[in-house]
Amino acid sequence: LSLIQFADQKQEFNKRPTKISRRSLSRSISQSSTDSYSSAASYTDSSDDETSPRDKQQKNSKGNADFCIKNIKQADFGRREIEIAEQGGKGPLCLNVYVVCLCVCLQVLMETLSALGAQCRWAACNIYSTQNEVAAALAEGGFSVFAWKGESEDDFWWCIDRCVNVEGWQPNMILDDGGDLTHWIYKKYPNMFKKIKGIVEESVTGVHRLYQLSKAGKLCVPAMNVNDSVTKQKFDNLYCCRESILDGLKRTTDVMFGGKQVVVCGYGEVGKGCCAALKAMGSIVYVTEIDPICALQACMDGFRLVKLNEVIRQVDIVITCTGNKNVVVREYMDRMKNGCIVCNMGHSNTEIDVASLRTPELTWERVRSQVDHVIWPDGKRIVLLAEGRLLNLSCSTVPTFVLSITATTQALALIELYNAPEGRYKQDVYLLPKKMDEYVASLHLPTFDAHLTELSDEQAKYLGLNKNGPFKPNYYRSAAA
Amino acid sequence: LSLIQFADQKQEFNKRPTKISRRSLSRSISQSSTDSYSSAASYTDSSDDETSPRDKQQKNSKGNADFCIKNIKQADFGRREIEIAEQGGKGPLCLNVYVVCLCVCLQVLMETLSALGAQCRWAACNIYSTQNEVAAALAEGGFSVFAWKGESEDDFWWCIDRCVNVEGWQPNMILDDGGDLTHWIYKKYPNMFKKIKGIVEESVTGVHRLYQLSKAGKLCVPAMNVNDSVTKQKFDNLYCCRESILDGLKRTTDVMFGGKQVVVCGYGEVGKGCCAALKAMGSIVYVTEIDPICALQACMDGFRLVKLNEVIRQVDIVITCTGNKNVVVREYMDRMKNGCIVCNMGHSNTEIDVASLRTPELTWERVRSQVDHVIWPDGKRIVLLAEGRLLNLSCSTVPTFVLSITATTQALALIELYNAPEGRYKQDVYLLPKKMDEYVASLHLPTFDAHLTELSDEQAKYLGLNKNGPFKPNYYRSAAA
Amino acid sequence: LSLIQFADQKQEFNKRPTKISRRSLSRSISQSSTDSYSSAASYTDSSDDETSPRDKQQKNSKGNADFCIKNIKQADFGRREIEIAEQGGKGPLCLNVYVVCLCVCLQVLMETLSALGAQCRWAACNIYSTQNEVAAALAEGGFSVFAWKGESEDDFWWCIDRCVNVEGWQPNMILDDGGDLTHWIYKKYPNMFKKIKGIVEESVTGVHRLYQLSKAGKLCVPAMNVNDSVTKQKFDNLYCCRESILDGLKRTTDVMFGGKQVVVCGYGEVGKGCCAALKAMGSIVYVTEIDPICALQACMDGFRLVKLNEVIRQVDIVITCTGNKNVVVREYMDRMKNGCIVCNMGHSNTEIDVASLRTPELTWERVRSQVDHVIWPDGKRIVLLAEGRLLNLSCSTVPTFVLSITATTQALALIELYNAPEGRYKQDVYLLPKKMDEYVASLHLPTFDAHLTELSDEQAKYLGLNKNGPFKPNYYRSAAA
Amino acid sequence: LSLIQFADQKQEFNKRPTKISRRSLSRSISQSSTDSYSSAASYTDSSDDETSPRDKQQKNSKGNADFCIKNIKQADFGRREIEIAEQGGKGPLCLNVYVVCLCVCLQVLMETLSALGAQCRWAACNIYSTQNEVAAALAEGGFSVFAWKGESEDDFWWCIDRCVNVEGWQPNMILDDGGDLTHWIYKKYPNMFKKIKGIVEESVTGVHRLYQLSKAGKLCVPAMNVNDSVTKQKFDNLYCCRESILDGLKRTTDVMFGGKQVVVCGYGEVGKGCCAALKAMGSIVYVTEIDPICALQACMDGFRLVKLNEVIRQVDIVITCTGNKNVVVREYMDRMKNGCIVCNMGHSNTEIDVASLRTPELTWERVRSQVDHVIWPDGKRIVLLAEGRLLNLSCSTVPTFVLSITATTQALALIELYNAPEGRYKQDVYLLPKKMDEYVASLHLPTFDAHLTELSDEQAKYLGLNKNGPFKPNYYRSAAA
Repeated sequence: LSLIQFADQKQEFNKRPTKISRRSLSRSISQSSTDSYSSAASYTDSSDDETSPRDKQQKNSKGNADFCIKNIKQADFGRREIEIAEQGGKGPLCLNVYVVCLCVCLQVLMETLSALGAQCRWAACNIYSTQNEVAAALAEGGFSVFAWKGESEDDFWWCIDRCVNVEGWQPNMILDDGGDLTHWIYKKYPNMFKKIKGIVEESVTGVHRLYQLSKAGKLCVPAMNVNDSVTKQKFDNLYCCRESILDGLKRTTDVMFGGKQVVVCGYGEVGKGCCAALKAMGSIVYVTEIDPICALQACMDGFRLVKLNEVIRQVDIVITCTGNKNVVVREYMDRMKNGCIVCNMGHSNTEIDVASLRTPELTWERVRSQVDHVIWPDGKRIVLLAEGRLLNLSCSTVPTFVLSITATTQALALIELYNAPEGRYKQDVYLLPKKMDEYVASLHLPTFDAHLTELSDEQAKYLGLNKNGPFKPNYYRSAAA
Repeated sequence: LSLIQFADQKQEFNKRPTKISRRSLSRSISQSSTDSYSSAASYTDSSDDETSPRDKQQKNSKGNADFCIKNIKQADFGRREIEIAEQGGKGPLCLNVYVVCLCVCLQVLMETLSALGAQCRWAACNIYSTQNEVAAALAEGGFSVFAWKGESEDDFWWCIDRCVNVEGWQPNMILDDGGDLTHWIYKKYPNMFKKIKGIVEESVTGVHRLYQLSKAGKLCVPAMNVNDSVTKQKFDNLYCCRESILDGLKRTTDVMFGGKQVVVCGYGEVGKGCCAALKAMGSIVYVTEIDPICALQACMDGFRLVKLNEVIRQVDIVITCTGNKNVVVREYMDRMKNGCIVCNMGHSNTEIDVASLRTPELTWERVRSQVDHVIWPDGKRIVLLAEGRLLNLSCSTVPTFVLSITATTQALALIELYNAPEGRYKQDVYLLPKKMDEYVASLHLPTFDAHLTELSDEQAKYLGLNKNGPFKPNYYRSAAA
Repeated sequence: LSLIQFADQKQEFNKRPTKISRRSLSRSISQSSTDSYSSAASYTDSSDDETSPRDKQQKNSKGNADFCIKNIKQADFGRREIEIAEQGGKGPLCLNVYVVCLCVCLQVLMETLSALGAQCRWAACNIYSTQNEVAAALAEGGFSVFAWKGESEDDFWWCIDRCVNVEGWQPNMILDDGGDLTHWIYKKYPNMFKKIKGIVEESVTGVHRLYQLSKAGKLCVPAMNVNDSVTKQKFDNLYCCRESILDGLKRTTDVMFGGKQVVVCGYGEVGKGCCAALKAMGSIVYVTEIDPICALQACMDGFRLVKLNEVIRQVDIVITCTGNKNVVVREYMDRMKNGCIVCNMGHSNTEIDVASLRTPELTWERVRSQVDHVIWPDGKRIVLLAEGRLLNLSCSTVPTFVLSITATTQALALIELYNAPEGRYKQDVYLLPKKMDEYVASLHLPTFDAHLTELSDEQAKYLGLNKNGPFKPNYYRSAAA
Repeated sequence: LSLIQFADQKQEFNKRPTKISRRSLSRSISQSSTDSYSSAASYTDSSDDETSPRDKQQKNSKGNADFCIKNIKQADFGRREIEIAEQGGKGPLCLNVYVVCLCVCLQVLMETLSALGAQCRWAACNIYSTQNEVAAALAEGGFSVFAWKGESEDDFWWCIDRCVNVEGWQPNMILDDGGDLTHWIYKKYPNMFKKIKGIVEESVTGVHRLYQLSKAGKLCVPAMNVNDSVTKQKFDNLYCCRESILDGLKRTTDVMFGGKQVVVCGYGEVGKGCCAALKAMGSIVYVTEIDPICALQACMDGFRLVKLNEVIRQVDIVITCTGNKNVVVREYMDRMKNGCIVCNMGHSNTEIDVASLRTPELTWERVRSQVDHVIWPDGKRIVLLAEGRLLNLSCSTVPTFVLSITATTQALALIELYNAPEGRYKQDVYLLPKKMDEYVASLHLPTFDAHLTELSDEQAKYLGLNKNGPFKPNYYRSAAA
């Protein structure tokens, strides 16, 4: 990265985004014709090949073999989904190298980083999240990808290691999602941190781990918590879930929402999105909460705040969005009515105690992909979706627009950590600077033909603000609790 | 049908529905575990068998050959979807025979009528609407079904004729959907009408034809317009479309609704449902209308009333719900922006002038089932769904609950016409009596654990009503314009 | 009315409304600066004058004495509210004379009819509804008005008689609201009907009476039921109540809606409006219904359908909108919680059994105008609004826009009955012709800058419609049940 | 304050609130029968006494003369409004003395603090905000109050000085609203700070001033910013404004919301509340913003983001909620259409450039209390509400519930600062600790019969949380931007 480019980049954030930089960062959202990268699309993928990808000889059409995926022949299908992102030449940013561990479905990010000049290696953050077709297209495109759908636990760590452990390649940044990659490097290759300038982490779990490392004095590079960036939060959670809860339930069960009684466990951003959507569709929604601030918000938004046991017998649908474990336990499922649908929109797969349903007296019947009927001895059935894993990842799609917000946030965080002058960031966990958060948002406004108002000099002075932002003070702690 | 049963039936409508009768009529909605009969499900059906069903020898496992469908082997799959409807013994009604022409997807109705004691023969009302699996299951169950998905025009009339023209079988009722069956009998077998006691018709088009026959003095039996029954209308249109517009758009395009600009053409019940759903999801919705009463309602509901040309350049999605023809013509499509999605929620396939897109300078690209990109010479693409046919039938599902409302309404209309004393109905078109409309609704309330209030004697007297309804006067003309 | 004018008028309804006629009919809505005629405004009117208006000598500034009101000195205040309606010259319609019995608050109508050339005499339809200031302004303007706020029962009939019984004046039309005027003429001056061409009636009660007269064969002139005109219905009930329920509750109790539990009795148009508004403000709303069709709608709109006794202990607010009597009886009020607010949005004052609260063990405390605390021996209070009379008439305002819809509907009905060729209307009760209903709506669209789409010739033919409407067939019975 | 009480108090916050402490803090919300303290109520107060309160001899019925208010005779009226708060004995907290400067309308807080054992002296924070009746009741109750409605600038500072400057009385805490009191003490009595343990400030402006003092190194005691406490923020802004925008507009203009075009300037919490309410009432809402994050939220919530000049000609209502100055300037008002309503929901009175309307060519006409018509030479009128001051304070009411949230937050902040062990707080500005924020919320849940879920030990451990909260990490920066 030349000094000139450095300078350009720094200027960038000190002025209104220029047309050029906007384009290179937000290319991914310019496509209106295919509005999402569907993880659901591939759940009809029924390739019968049972050989482990680890046991196959793999090579793309140019002879490159530094990847490990399910089936390189699926590249064409995956190609269509990402082709628009490839138009245009090299971007203005030429970072050297990263190691990254992400949902492979986030190909938007891969392409963006590549276009910005970064060299990346990729592994999956989750054994289920890879779309084989997309991985194939990326491998064919020359990316070093180590991921396939349905990896075993052992495969998972093998992939991460293949990703990290490569001769003659030294990462200078880590982009992590869940903290497993960071954990692996800490454990196996601690020396790598000498040349790493920072970690960008996007998940709740990974962020939690970083704060714990920091508290324990063990964090040896600066880390940026992008999970709590405002723009990304709103889209990943509120706006995305407001749509995906409906989509996920429809695709799996075709349930009619009108008049249905639903209990939503948790009234954070995900819960708020689910509740708003279902209320709008004519469902009667109950909420459970542990945090009194969120609880009061649920009340003011028109939802009865209950304990789960108060309504469990009467509801038609149970949705968990707490981030907690064992929120829906066997005892509750025993009392649900026939046909009750149970699903999880929170993180991981701990919220519903699915293990408790794997007992001899209950019969499981797979009625569709991602849909199981669990049958009690008296004939009662509950409808369990995605075996308690995330409904929106398993049975719905993540809109391109949301991916673009996330990718832009991550790219900016990487750039910021990489470019930051010595001393700006210490061995601690930081939030994305407010100004960059605003910048991510501003890059996405043109999609909506939205026209931002600019402050006059007089107004900026009155408010004590720079005309180009940030527009909120640092002590601003917003109201969504 | 014995006199005793007659009497029972008549009493039925003079008192609150008894538990028994409710059960037999509403069995179909007792199932909460599979909440819809998916017409979309079968769009992944890719059987390669190219032989015409008309050219095959067909026989079910009991040796019955009086049917013609795609593939009797699919019966098992279809079986699951309808099995719940089969529990329970013979119903209280033993009508003799009908000839019917319906979406074969309405197996709920078939089972209900059969359970009520009717003998029926079935053909499809539409060359696309049959689900082969369900048809197979019905044929296997002994029903005389003549229908498959993707019939040619010629097949269509051949099926109707096979359905109607059978030795030793005399229909006494017609249950029609679109009027084609009625038309065929008028044209080919006019003598059949001598023994037919009435026609029940459920479509806008079919009803329109009946009123025209009536006006021309050519209607030779009483007909009942169930399309305009209040309960059925609300569910078929408002409630169903409120959900299926979101579902249909998501399954085909994965579009994110938030912030999108949408124009909905037509603000009848279908348009109202679409608008309400999209507004709730954060879209900005414009409405076009020809009827000033509906237009004023759109205004009061918070939608800008525009002419299509005023917004065509800026919108992301165009939805037609007018029942009219050529609402979206080539001229408008030429001016749409890149990536604009175009679809139809109204009836038939006339609203979007799809023919005008089949010109040499435009390229069509099929990107998914039901999704075409139409590409202009300058690279602009519009996304056309279901080739302009009904989005909700092609790309979404019809919830069981809605089918149950429809089936119950049709069954009651058949019973009423069949049982009516001489002279109650003349050779004219009638609306379903208000009391029966209310009865259909009351049968579906228990699903929602809804508790109806009963009038006291004093209150009934004050209102001048019978305690059991009807609860609205005949001159009641309701407010949805 | 000359023949030429007749002809003009008839042509009017056969074509799109011309600019000129629109203006004369819709002048009343052209005013955006004062958006309502507030009946609430005058509830601070505390004139101490205790003399009965019947005992005063009254004369306006021009010497005219043919009126009887509270205080002619209030004319100036009332003047402002109506002055805009007076601009412009005589209208195109020169009907001779009517006798009318209406809420005097409907001065919009008075001015409109007068501008159209009608001679009218006015009495109140209700002992509470007169605004004295407006009555004063009208009397000062030369109108023969017999009405004041707080008439006794005896005053009420005296006023009607003064209005009707005047030497040398023969009405040819009756415009009634509640049927009391019609009843009085039937009883006292039956001969008047010889020259009366028709009755226009706008209330539920009055319409009910007319249908009973008709059934009994006693209706001696044609009558038009404008209460059931679609446009008027929607505005009087749904749209008006959606706003006035919030306004009425706030002005009287300043209650915060968020999180409150509310039960709404009745889910007709009024109930629908109340429920929608309160749900949007974050209240939790329960509904009671007797009609299964409306009940099912409540379910699909997301409201729990209950019997009143199931929720009476827990709700914060009880609202009646049934049109029935004794919906909220003492037994229920005994079980309400402390501070529960009780009010009526239905018609008349029968829904809450207020009489049952006038017992020695309960204490009444007037805490504000229109607000009583009724106190139980244990200290529990319920908050009774407007003594159970209509909340929206007593404690809120009726927007000009709604008055304009009503006035236009009534004026068109009068014109239609007056102008109808011999034989079009018999001695029966009629609904306003659909085309006129549409015309009323179309006159009010410009307020919203709403642009109606016009049918092409080809489309009109396809739909079998006249390009100028009516746009719905006669058998159209809409879906709001 | 004894050590025991200290200890009790500290324990309090380490466990679930006990019933007793809840009661003493939240007594104010136990009253359901009068749900607000209406500042609007007193705007009909037209006492003609023109003598300045400063020139009157004042004494309450017990002979106490240490106050200065408008009219002690109004005490009875004010009494009713606050009497419920007086029940019960002394509270558990015996702080010594404060000097306070607040809206006198916040009598809830006064009573609460007094019940907790604090000695307070009160002045107004604003020359308009005092309700004379309430001030009278408080003076009669023995409070030292120096405030009346309509103070001059000079009166304002005189009152503050009387409040502060009293022999033999030493404050140990400051509770400020706007920072004027703090400013005055800094300027006139800097030595007082030696014994002051802290400042609690609740306004945006006051907080801004404190941060500036802190930055300049001049803050000499700890200060707590309660304005940014989450619970208080949500209620003061989002929930309160969602209701008061409708109430304020109705009471002043009786405008009908359905179909109206509205532009809301600013999409912070206040703007969000206004937009949500108006959208729900059927208005078409446009939004202006300077902050791209808020702008993107507006898009996703379904509002078109515009610049003011793009819609100024077409809108019916303009609402400012920016906290900025000169948002609506003369140039825009020149282009508004006839009858356009202009009002301010943001803070202070700077958003609308009212001064620019005081020019000779424009005529002002006062049509109601708080409503002016400003008339252009061509006859165009705009309707200006409350002369550009806060609509919700001037023309609506603040619900008791919101006051209780605020008062509880302030009381807890005072207690925390007072009780904090040496060294916990330095000479800086602090946010209310999350745990106390949650405590405020939890005290208000019983009003809604809301049932909070408690974490199991296992779950608390999994989440790394204390079972009693705080439930969100410190780095939690929520998503409303």
